[in-house]
Amino acid sequence: MQEHINDVKEPFAFGICRVDRGRLNPEKVLQATYIIAKREAKGGIVLQKALISAGETPDPAQSEQVFDISIGFVNEALNLCAADDETAEISNALLLIAKYFEPNLFKAVFLFADKAPKSVEAVYLKLYLLSNGQAELRSLDLTGAFGVLPNVAWVGGTPVELGYLRANEAELKVKGEFPKIDFVDKFPRYLQHIIPADDVRILDGSKVRMGARLAEGTTVMPGASYVNFNAGTTGACMVEGRISSSAVVGAGSDIGGGASILGVLSGTSGKPVSIGRNTLLGANSVTGIPLGDGCVVDAGIAILEGTKITIAAKDAEEIAKINPNFNLSGESFQIVKGIDLAGMHGIHFRQNSQNGQMQAARSKKDVRLNAELH
Amino acid sequence: MQEHINDVKEPFAFGICRVDRGRLNPEKVLQATYIIAKREAKGGIVLQKALISAGETPDPAQSEQVFDISIGFVNEALNLCAADDETAEISNALLLIAKYFEPNLFKAVFLFADKAPKSVEAVYLKLYLLSNGQAELRSLDLTGAFGVLPNVAWVGGTPVELGYLRANEAELKVKGEFPKIDFVDKFPRYLQHIIPADDVRILDGSKVRMGARLAEGTTVMPGASYVNFNAGTTGACMVEGRISSSAVVGAGSDIGGGASILGVLSGTSGKPVSIGRNTLLGANSVTGIPLGDGCVVDAGIAILEGTKITIAAKDAEEIAKINPNFNLSGESFQIVKGIDLAGMHGIHFRQNSQNGQMQAARSKKDVRLNAELH
Amino acid sequence: MQEHINDVKEPFAFGICRVDRGRLNPEKVLQATYIIAKREAKGGIVLQKALISAGETPDPAQSEQVFDISIGFVNEALNLCAADDETAEISNALLLIAKYFEPNLFKAVFLFADKAPKSVEAVYLKLYLLSNGQAELRSLDLTGAFGVLPNVAWVGGTPVELGYLRANEAELKVKGEFPKIDFVDKFPRYLQHIIPADDVRILDGSKVRMGARLAEGTTVMPGASYVNFNAGTTGACMVEGRISSSAVVGAGSDIGGGASILGVLSGTSGKPVSIGRNTLLGANSVTGIPLGDGCVVDAGIAILEGTKITIAAKDAEEIAKINPNFNLSGESFQIVKGIDLAGMHGIHFRQNSQNGQMQAARSKKDVRLNAELH
Repeated sequence: MQEHINDVKEPFAFGICRVDRGRLNPEKVLQATYIIAKREAKGGIVLQKALISAGETPDPAQSEQVFDISIGFVNEALNLCAADDETAEISNALLLIAKYFEPNLFKAVFLFADKAPKSVEAVYLKLYLLSNGQAELRSLDLTGAFGVLPNVAWVGGTPVELGYLRANEAELKVKGEFPKIDFVDKFPRYLQHIIPADDVRILDGSKVRMGARLAEGTTVMPGASYVNFNAGTTGACMVEGRISSSAVVGAGSDIGGGASILGVLSGTSGKPVSIGRNTLLGANSVTGIPLGDGCVVDAGIAILEGTKITIAAKDAEEIAKINPNFNLSGESFQIVKGIDLAGMHGIHFRQNSQNGQMQAARSKKDVRLNAELH
Repeated sequence: MQEHINDVKEPFAFGICRVDRGRLNPEKVLQATYIIAKREAKGGIVLQKALISAGETPDPAQSEQVFDISIGFVNEALNLCAADDETAEISNALLLIAKYFEPNLFKAVFLFADKAPKSVEAVYLKLYLLSNGQAELRSLDLTGAFGVLPNVAWVGGTPVELGYLRANEAELKVKGEFPKIDFVDKFPRYLQHIIPADDVRILDGSKVRMGARLAEGTTVMPGASYVNFNAGTTGACMVEGRISSSAVVGAGSDIGGGASILGVLSGTSGKPVSIGRNTLLGANSVTGIPLGDGCVVDAGIAILEGTKITIAAKDAEEIAKINPNFNLSGESFQIVKGIDLAGMHGIHFRQNSQNGQMQAARSKKDVRLNAELH
Repeated sequence: MQEHINDVKEPFAFGICRVDRGRLNPEKVLQATYIIAKREAKGGIVLQKALISAGETPDPAQSEQVFDISIGFVNEALNLCAADDETAEISNALLLIAKYFEPNLFKAVFLFADKAPKSVEAVYLKLYLLSNGQAELRSLDLTGAFGVLPNVAWVGGTPVELGYLRANEAELKVKGEFPKIDFVDKFPRYLQHIIPADDVRILDGSKVRMGARLAEGTTVMPGASYVNFNAGTTGACMVEGRISSSAVVGAGSDIGGGASILGVLSGTSGKPVSIGRNTLLGANSVTGIPLGDGCVVDAGIAILEGTKITIAAKDAEEIAKINPNFNLSGESFQIVKGIDLAGMHGIHFRQNSQNGQMQAARSKKDVRLNAELH
């Protein structure tokens, strides 16, 4: 699959970034802002050749490498890119770097394999690939990312070490210059790095972590919503609830106000949850199992792996018609567990308001987003 | 109802605003910040006369008109307003505009009728009327507002075209000047335009969209709350949940943490929901029907139009006493649908924790806000 | 307990702060930013002595006193602190104040007793003690704090009177300088004053009010979470839900997405709720009773003081083994109220999905936080 030319290898991904460094410890990179972040053969090879010409030694046997960008490298790379349309975007970035050049500020980053990231730059490059749609959600190895990223205070998009603030707290407060800290986290926010599609709306930037994917037409409301990294939507969706880490939601689905799709990081079995297309999670509902297309989870109920759910015989019959894997028992009704209905299409989950029974029926609702909004 | 004087007509509403324009396309107005936004006869007529004197042609036959403010117009209007207390606020605004005048920056806007808005300026004027209480919630024609407003990135209160950011992404990132985007939406936030009453609290500005109305004494907490445009409170309320578009909540009511009042935009029947006075929506409850005064919806339950609700005979009797429209069957108990109880007063909605039955009883709780907080 | 030396008394707490004043009314203090906020004998006594030397009259018979810091006081205090390691932090603060001195900007504040605070400075000092862990949550008298603190617009960490904005609205809007108001509240945010421990994460600064306590290892997610003042965590916790005023959560507990712990301010019985260690509140659950260690409240259910809960005999037996106060009836099952289980350990609260019954059983789950995240 991968092309080898004179000791250079098509990388898994590569990028050119500007880094923010620590104030206490300038050796420490706190954030990497990518000007180029790509999975593409030609650019990745050209940049390796330029590095070699500039005296560096790319080593495709390693899973990742980060190189400081020198003016020498910029010039070599510009020569190699010259008059090639395929690398025009890279040339443009390099010309800008030449124009605003400062040493130790820009990096060329290569992922030669999709292994556990070892550097802040590698984690950020993977987050870019997820957010800009060049890698499918859940497809990248992010093992240990929490350990690699430093926990920092974010001040207007700039990461600041908590230790720096602590060391200077008295002086900053006496001078009235204690900064407005927007948040404290290892991850930046999506909108610090990604320009969404024209019809994507994010009503509160704090609601989407970098590394999330928001497909065209997605709206994220500001009430009780959240989209974690390595999670998101693959088509136009209304998001008023929580899409936890590793959860993926299909086009046309509506995640109601306060609805929770359980994730893999806290308090769950660790299996990632996918939601199909045109599925509705009612307000304040909770879903711990994958759902297929055209499902409805009624407002306020929780469907977990172990929830016992009753299905009437005629509903089971209807459900089986569109779910070949569904096993009809033939009895008057049957009781299944939530996990048994994982990924099935067209199911309406509800709680009988006369007797409290959790039930699954064939959904009759047509989940359709408001065309004006998406 | 409307007065005609020399071809000028009392407008439905009028205003004077400063506009933000696109960077890619300066012809495009992205936001209108109103210095004057009024429904009032005299000012609207004076400004039309001044426009005529300055050579413009107001046409009251149109539903709306937007005029660029020239120095000539400012002077004519100041003359007409001179020494008239009723137009002192307008004079003051015009004097300030004269002082800081720039061409193409200020607009005079007239709504001659309450029709579907055609311009960004008209949509904003209507949002002002809703937010400042000059028009009742749900009373204005906002048809097509989503289509009129451009979707933009908001940077510290300033709208920026996503296309502009995209065109300049590489340079902004290389220079370390990629802006901190607070949010991406068609609507601005309430606090960008409205100064709330002294006893209103909004603990997170992202939680209230422009066009919402927050009556005096209202507190909006930052947890899972949201107040959409054309929705809000008509008296002092505690808001820890979601007041969706078109929902209106009466004085003394408490929308508990994470409670959802369903709106008209997504996933509902489209009938707007009103909540009466002194009603309590428990934490994480969901209400899809209108409620009267003094109701309680218990924490964690969902009352939707189709929810089957059991009422004991003696409770039905008590409920009928304060709800003349309530039909008592005389049987030992009856089962109604949520929609059958729409707008009734003094009802306590609960789920029997012994058998899961949804029940309505006569509420005994006295919903009262904490006087220290409101 | 308290030492008396020449008319000075060890204060309950003391501090040195910089104040923000009103623009309309500069006599009014709107915010106090503490450089020193301590409960410690020596510093409190040294500062009183310095005040006396500088001609002021501390009066330990009062519950609180606020003194304007003069250069004379700074010099006296520096002399008294000289070469004493115990007061090095105070010396450092005073040297900085001397360097950036302005009259009427810095205050020395003494709380001689823990009484209802009378000044903005006293309220803020108590909030600092709560947030920095020098006073236990709920241990301080905050009676009337809402009345003492002014409600203000917060612009990038600076409080601005709503009346000032109103008086200058037209000019600010004409000039395009209407400020970006982050929020409107009496309380500031935690991150405006407190630098959290290195492993604390607060993904949205709006989610934690000043006066909250976040123990090391606590993560506050941005979805539907909130931590009010005088509430928080005493050990590493995952917080994706609401910790209302006066609620306290123990180490290792997980407050799921949208979960609500009821507080004392609105719509409850007013008894503060404590949650033990290693307890899990499922997504969108509601807890109105105190819980012990190792409990689980299933997603989506509400356990309130009056909720009727069924316990099977064998579960009652298991629960009694670890809860000496638990009264086993010996019958095949028993029905208790939520309040009867207040503070018990190892209970799993769930709703039977076959018959809607709320049940308590002996929890078998081992609640453990994700080690990578905390």
